[in-house]
Amino acid sequence: MSSADAKAARRAKFEGVFEKIRDELIEHFAAQGMPQEAVDWYRNNLNYNVPGGKLNRGLSVVDTVEILKGRALTDDEYFKSAVLGWGVELLQAYFLVADDMMDSSITRRGQPCWYRLPEVGSIAINDSFMLEAAIYRLLKVHFRSEPYYVDLLDVFHETTYQTEMGQLVDLITAPEDKVDLNKFSLERHRLIVVYKTAFYSFYLPVACAMLVSRIPETYAVPSSSTPVRPYDLALSILVPLGEYFQIQDDFLDFAATPEQLGKIGTDIVDNKCSWVVNTAIKLASPEQRKLLDENYGRKNAEKEKVVKKLFEELDIRGHYATYEERVVKELNEKIDQIEEVEGGLKREVFRSFLGKIYKRSK
Amino acid sequence: MSSADAKAARRAKFEGVFEKIRDELIEHFAAQGMPQEAVDWYRNNLNYNVPGGKLNRGLSVVDTVEILKGRALTDDEYFKSAVLGWGVELLQAYFLVADDMMDSSITRRGQPCWYRLPEVGSIAINDSFMLEAAIYRLLKVHFRSEPYYVDLLDVFHETTYQTEMGQLVDLITAPEDKVDLNKFSLERHRLIVVYKTAFYSFYLPVACAMLVSRIPETYAVPSSSTPVRPYDLALSILVPLGEYFQIQDDFLDFAATPEQLGKIGTDIVDNKCSWVVNTAIKLASPEQRKLLDENYGRKNAEKEKVVKKLFEELDIRGHYATYEERVVKELNEKIDQIEEVEGGLKREVFRSFLGKIYKRSK
Repeated sequence: MSSADAKAARRAKFEGVFEKIRDELIEHFAAQGMPQEAVDWYRNNLNYNVPGGKLNRGLSVVDTVEILKGRALTDDEYFKSAVLGWGVELLQAYFLVADDMMDSSITRRGQPCWYRLPEVGSIAINDSFMLEAAIYRLLKVHFRSEPYYVDLLDVFHETTYQTEMGQLVDLITAPEDKVDLNKFSLERHRLIVVYKTAFYSFYLPVACAMLVSRIPETYAVPSSSTPVRPYDLALSILVPLGEYFQIQDDFLDFAATPEQLGKIGTDIVDNKCSWVVNTAIKLASPEQRKLLDENYGRKNAEKEKVVKKLFEELDIRGHYATYEERVVKELNEKIDQIEEVEGGLKREVFRSFLGKIYKRSK
Repeated sequence: MSSADAKAARRAKFEGVFEKIRDELIEHFAAQGMPQEAVDWYRNNLNYNVPGGKLNRGLSVVDTVEILKGRALTDDEYFKSAVLGWGVELLQAYFLVADDMMDSSITRRGQPCWYRLPEVGSIAINDSFMLEAAIYRLLKVHFRSEPYYVDLLDVFHETTYQTEMGQLVDLITAPEDKVDLNKFSLERHRLIVVYKTAFYSFYLPVACAMLVSRIPETYAVPSSSTPVRPYDLALSILVPLGEYFQIQDDFLDFAATPEQLGKIGTDIVDNKCSWVVNTAIKLASPEQRKLLDENYGRKNAEKEKVVKKLFEELDIRGHYATYEERVVKELNEKIDQIEEVEGGLKREVFRSFLGKIYKRSK
C-alpha cells in the first residue's frame, strides 16, 4: 500500500467512527420523543459541519495514542481514541459555524457556510451550541466510568474557554470594517494565535491522547530529583508549535500560489491580524507605515497590490525563512531534551507534529 | 423587617456574590495577559447580561439548600450555593443572548438586547459562548475538590443539551416569518416547554441544591423495600411544575393586562407556539381554525384582535382555570406522597416553588 493509500485508509477508518457516533447521537435525540423534522435537522447539522475538513486535529488524537502505546491499538482503544478525536472535531465545528457568522464568511470547506443556507440562517447559533453539547454527551456515554473522565471534562472546558478568549481578542483587534493598525503588534498576534488556535488544535488532542493512554500527572525520571509534569511539558512544546503552525498559515496566505494553497488568500483585504502584517509593521519606515495604514484591510484589489508589493520590499519571505529555521531548531532542541521512560511521554509525539508542519505548502 | 424588605435583602446578598465571582472571572482573564480592551469587554458582557433579571432561578438554589438543611446556612454554605445559583443564571444568560439574536428581539430586561448595541453586533455569539464557559471556570475553582464535582458537570451538561434540543424544536416549529399551525399541537407544546424551560429553570437549580446538600443518589424509606431515587423523584415533580409555570406564562401573555404583566404580550403577533393557541387549535371548529390560520402570527393589530376575540369565544380563560386547578391538585398530591427521612428530600422544596407560581399575575 502506498503512503497516500495508507493515509486514505486511516482517514476512512476514522470517518467510520464518525458515522457510529453520529447515529448514536441521533438515536438518543430521537428517543427523547423529538419530532422527525428536528431529528433530520440535527442529522444535517452534524453531517454538514463535522466531517469534511482535513481532520488533522481528530486524527492526531489517534496517532498520538498509537505513538504513546508503541503498538497497534485494540479495537476498543482505537474506538475510544477516535471518539476523543471526534470530540476535538466537534469542538472545532462549534467554533467554525459561529466564526463564519461573526466573520460574514461565504464558504467553508468548499460549500456554503451553514448559516448561509436559506432555511438555516440564525438558527445556526443554536446548531453550534448543539455541536458543543454533543461532545459532553459522547464523553458521558463512552468515558463516564473511566477514572480520567473528570480530567477530560476539565481539559475540554479549559481549552474551549481559552479559544473563546482568543476569538474575543481577535474580534476586537481586527474588525473587518474598521482598520486600526495601532492595535496590531507581534505580541498581540502571539496572544491571539496561542489562545484562538494553539490550545485547541495542538494541546487538546495530545492531552486527550495522554489521558486515554493513562499518562500520569507526574512521574520520576533518572536524571532529576524533580518529577516530570508531562501535561505541562507537552503544553510547553505544543503552544510554540501551534504558534509556528499559525504563523506559517499566515505566511502561506500571502506567499503561496492559489494552486499550492487550494484557495485564494484574503488576509490583506480582510484586515486580518496576521503575522505578515505585524512583521511588516515592525519593519516599516514611517512612509511605509503610512502606506500600510492607507491600503491594508480594504476590499480593493489595487490597494491589496500596494500592500503585497510592500511586503515583498520588506522581505517578508526572508524574515519568514529566518523565523522558521529558528523556531524549528528551538522546537527540536526542546523535543530532544525529553527524557523517555516506560509509560511516559515520547519524543516522537512532537516530532510527528513538527514533521507534518515543517515546509508544508498548503 | 417587612416581607418585601426581607426579599430585597435576600436579593442584595445574592447579588453581592455576583460581584465577587465576576471580579474573580475578570481577574483570571486579565492574568492570562489579555489586553485591557478585552478585559473591559468581558466585564461589560458579564454586567450587562447576567444580573438584572428576576433571579428566580439562581435564588431558588439558595432557598432549596436552606430548606434541605432545615437551618440558616454558614457563610461557606451560602457562598457555594450562591455560586451554583449564578451558574444557573449564567446558563440562562448564555441562552438569552443567543435567543434574542435568533428571535431578532429588540429589548430584554428593559434595555436593548446585547447584540443590538452598535459595537457588539454578531460578536454577541462569542460573548454568549464565554458566559457558558464562565460556568465551568467557576465550578472548577469552587468545586473541583468536592466528591460531587463530576455530578455538577454532568447535570449542567445534560440540562444545557436538553434546553438546546427544546430551542431547536421551538425554532423549527414556530419560525416568526412562516406561520403553519399544522405544526402546532399541545403535545408539541409540552415537548418544547419541558425541554426548553423546565429542565434548566426548575430541575437544574434543585439538582444543584441537592448535590451541594449531599443528598445521596438513593436512600431507604420505611414504607418501601425499594430505595428512593431522589433526583428522579425531584425531576418527576419539577418537570410538570415547569410545564405549569410556562403554561401560566403563556396564559398571562394573553390574559393579563399590561399593568399586571409589566410588558405588552406579543405571543400572538410573534407566531409563538403558546399553550393558548394550541388549546384554541384543539377546541376550534373548522371555521374558527380557518380564522386562526389567517390571523395568527401576523404583525397586524387588526388580525391580533381577531385572534384575541376568538380566544375569548373559545373560553381560554375557563379552560386555563380548569387546567390550573387540576395540575395544582396533582402536584400537591405528588408532593404529599414524598416520604421525608433525615438527609433526604423535603416536601417544602416543591411546596415553596408551587407557592410562588400558583395564582401569580406577573
